[in-house]
Amino acid sequence: MVFQEKLTFATHGRGTISITDAIRQQVHLSGITTGLCHVFLQHTSASLLFCENADPDVRTDLERYMARLVADGDPIFEHTAEGPDDMSAHIRTMLSGSDLTLPVSNGQCDLGVWQGVYLWEHRTSGHRRSLTVTVSGE
Amino acid sequence: MVFQEKLTFATHGRGTISITDAIRQQVHLSGITTGLCHVFLQHTSASLLFCENADPDVRTDLERYMARLVADGDPIFEHTAEGPDDMSAHIRTMLSGSDLTLPVSNGQCDLGVWQGVYLWEHRTSGHRRSLTVTVSGE
Amino acid sequence: MVFQEKLTFATHGRGTISITDAIRQQVHLSGITTGLCHVFLQHTSASLLFCENADPDVRTDLERYMARLVADGDPIFEHTAEGPDDMSAHIRTMLSGSDLTLPVSNGQCDLGVWQGVYLWEHRTSGHRRSLTVTVSGE
Repeated sequence: MVFQEKLTFATHGRGTISITDAIRQQVHLSGITTGLCHVFLQHTSASLLFCENADPDVRTDLERYMARLVADGDPIFEHTAEGPDDMSAHIRTMLSGSDLTLPVSNGQCDLGVWQGVYLWEHRTSGHRRSLTVTVSGE
Repeated sequence: MVFQEKLTFATHGRGTISITDAIRQQVHLSGITTGLCHVFLQHTSASLLFCENADPDVRTDLERYMARLVADGDPIFEHTAEGPDDMSAHIRTMLSGSDLTLPVSNGQCDLGVWQGVYLWEHRTSGHRRSLTVTVSGE
Repeated sequence: MVFQEKLTFATHGRGTISITDAIRQQVHLSGITTGLCHVFLQHTSASLLFCENADPDVRTDLERYMARLVADGDPIFEHTAEGPDDMSAHIRTMLSGSDLTLPVSNGQCDLGVWQGVYLWEHRTSGHRRSLTVTVSGE
């Protein structure tokens, strides 16, 4: 059995947005009891990640770390047409990844207690971001 | 056909543990001939990776590299309640990933000759780590 | 329904090769309409990534960034038997990943307009690289 749905999220510049509830809802709608839920982001300057869901400092620390690791406007970049955050956004995406898969057990997302699913916008301005959720199993 | 099992591993502080044999065993138990095996770690301070399985120096070099790239107790961190290795463990997890999928062919894990599957503990003390293995196919 | 095929690519040293068309072709051959396409690289010194497919500068910038982040011949490396690019290739692979999954919708790869799939060779000399494509769904 395969269930597939497209979702859109509006971001407000660099930072993480919890999509855990939206993913849980799609798993519920799928009616699938045991299987997998795949989430795919159709962009190359935003990414998906599993992250600690309790203390919001974790995600601001993550952002601060990433801003230092991949500096906007790095003089080695030649791809600068869309501004200093364009190439850094592509590199951040490569490092954190555009797709993830999580297990479905007993009709629910089988996440750890402290695990959330986040959409991470890497551009400094807001964007509409499309993702495809595919739930498969029985 | 979907087969799903939960496994637990005890870690002994920072470092990698081979889980290749445990994964191979689950694929064997599933009875699935052609398909995919998904492995998911229910934690945000430990990760999963494919890595060279022959020379153990590869994994100690990896550890040494990561310790330098993501310094414990970095002064930019605000999430420090659980000690200097807490936030660095979350960042290491983001960089290396919490889930992976490998093909199943002829009833076996279709890994390359030099490829192993590892659980990577990022906290300095040992923990019990839970993972869910899902094998799907026919 | 599960479709599985093995592909081989010849690389010519460090750099990215588009495998988008080859993946699209396998999805077409599978006859699957709705589901997932998993791509797995059976090596630990080359990786797979989704990346911007329009401006080739993106991939040369990515290469330049990675060469600085993971220096060949770093004095902390002990795994040096195959040369200065051996251990750095393993670390690059860990950071960018060896497997990826993308949705299949209406019988096609459901990639974003600017998204391509790339094989990233991390060794300085060319290699033959094997990958397994698994398409599942209905």
